[in-house]
Amino acid sequence: MSVYTRVEADDLCTLLADYAVGELEDFTGISAGITNTNYFVGTSLGRWVLTLFEQVDETELPFFMQLMDHLAGHGVPCAHPVARNDGGFLSRVRGRPAALVYRLNGASVESPGPEHCRSLGGVVAEMHRAVASFTPVQRNARSLDWIASAAERLDGVMAADEHALLADEIAFQQRATDTLYADLPTAVVHADLFRDNVLFDQARVSGLIDFYYACRDYLLFDLAIICNDWAFDDAEHYCPAQWQAFMNAYVRRRTPDEAERAAWPAMLRAAALRFWASRLIDAHFPMSGEVVHIKDPAPFKRLLLAHRADAPALMPQ
Amino acid sequence: MSVYTRVEADDLCTLLADYAVGELEDFTGISAGITNTNYFVGTSLGRWVLTLFEQVDETELPFFMQLMDHLAGHGVPCAHPVARNDGGFLSRVRGRPAALVYRLNGASVESPGPEHCRSLGGVVAEMHRAVASFTPVQRNARSLDWIASAAERLDGVMAADEHALLADEIAFQQRATDTLYADLPTAVVHADLFRDNVLFDQARVSGLIDFYYACRDYLLFDLAIICNDWAFDDAEHYCPAQWQAFMNAYVRRRTPDEAERAAWPAMLRAAALRFWASRLIDAHFPMSGEVVHIKDPAPFKRLLLAHRADAPALMPQ
Repeated sequence: MSVYTRVEADDLCTLLADYAVGELEDFTGISAGITNTNYFVGTSLGRWVLTLFEQVDETELPFFMQLMDHLAGHGVPCAHPVARNDGGFLSRVRGRPAALVYRLNGASVESPGPEHCRSLGGVVAEMHRAVASFTPVQRNARSLDWIASAAERLDGVMAADEHALLADEIAFQQRATDTLYADLPTAVVHADLFRDNVLFDQARVSGLIDFYYACRDYLLFDLAIICNDWAFDDAEHYCPAQWQAFMNAYVRRRTPDEAERAAWPAMLRAAALRFWASRLIDAHFPMSGEVVHIKDPAPFKRLLLAHRADAPALMPQ
Repeated sequence: MSVYTRVEADDLCTLLADYAVGELEDFTGISAGITNTNYFVGTSLGRWVLTLFEQVDETELPFFMQLMDHLAGHGVPCAHPVARNDGGFLSRVRGRPAALVYRLNGASVESPGPEHCRSLGGVVAEMHRAVASFTPVQRNARSLDWIASAAERLDGVMAADEHALLADEIAFQQRATDTLYADLPTAVVHADLFRDNVLFDQARVSGLIDFYYACRDYLLFDLAIICNDWAFDDAEHYCPAQWQAFMNAYVRRRTPDEAERAAWPAMLRAAALRFWASRLIDAHFPMSGEVVHIKDPAPFKRLLLAHRADAPALMPQ
């Protein structure tokens, strides 16, 4: 159960007075999501999601709101916030910063097939085109520097051989940053496009959600995160049909350049490293008082080892 | 048939290269609308309407685009344009200015019942709240000055007694402008919210369309245009249940003030006059070479006479 903050009808009526979305008809808590409180809210004018931000750095919220608004304005299907009558996107509910967001149809798919990956490839390519004109900046909160300091915290609390692997991989990525990655195209990327952050209506993407790790990074980093989650099954076996379907659709709207093809095997490792490190921190240093799902770090270690041995190609033949 | 400009698949593929909405899947012309060419366009990312502006003053288009974008951003359901990858809303297709717009579900309703009017009342109230923060300005192209010059053109080409009525009503409205209307709240209003410009999904408004007469004017003028079309049947008989349902919903989000209640009977006449005059011009001075539906001016003359005799109240008891 992830509804942290209990919201009452009175809170919602007060909130809705600041918007032009009509009157409250119904609302219900959503038991999904890890770091935010989410409610479905129905009004006389439509269906919305109310998100109360429980852990996000409040100063970063305007960036995320602007990004979702920008993408939706360009036709990229995604959750995006409703403007208040005073023009802002952020409200306050029960002391938390909050946003009212357009509710998307559809649901996430646990075991996506090639047809899901094909639709996603087209959407991600358009997202990577649409962010070219998005100018606000945002650091990557889970950058290589963050991973390096995480490794320091983990020294002594995890098995020595695992920590050695972590340190070795960080060193490899630090070298790659100045060499393989030097000329890669960057833009604001989603950086967390796992299966649970993509909604489908039939086999067509109805929307991307949860942009709260979005940051300026390599477009290729976004692709590597996607490949690691969408083209590998739960036993970390590579599913070439999935990735082929994704890339076939992707390249119809955006063609990766030579530098991106060359950096791909290293970037797959970078994406595995990023989530291995953050899950290690979550597992070894759980934040007190929180009811969160601790996710197993091990799959990302296995993925990293697999990529070190033999990474799949960016463009399947 | 109102598809004026024939658009081919090649035109659409060229157009879509400038957007982030995916690849062309299908398209079909829409035989509705009077002054624009409209096509349904399906792409891999969604469903859109392409509008080619055949008669709209091109310099005014950015205002309309910004207005639709503003309203949609505030949650008011309406047709609104997709941003191009360069950030603009306007493209060019076959030499015409063109916009790609989100396609709404639903259809217009020829004989709306109270339940339709109730939903519309809520949406119009929210639109009238949301425009408070919309700052661009736009003159009313069918202002009282325009009507007065129309009357000059019509002198001698229409029956003398009808022209006398027209002149008398213009004089009445000119006096009302400085007196009854002096303190009325103004904002950007739709100014053309007839039944064919509102789409419904079941009995709920799914969207407002055709904002190409939107301008700064009295909020009450918008209400009077709506009352004249939605609360009068085709024999110009007043349907109090319709108007009561509309206003019951409207006042839950915006309460008309004393000045608006006092000006209401005169404003109903102003709204009837505006469409009587423009339809007289269309009927007596049809533009050459155009395939348009000439609409009968007579109903608006009858409505005007009815209001002069006995106008219904703004707020039904």
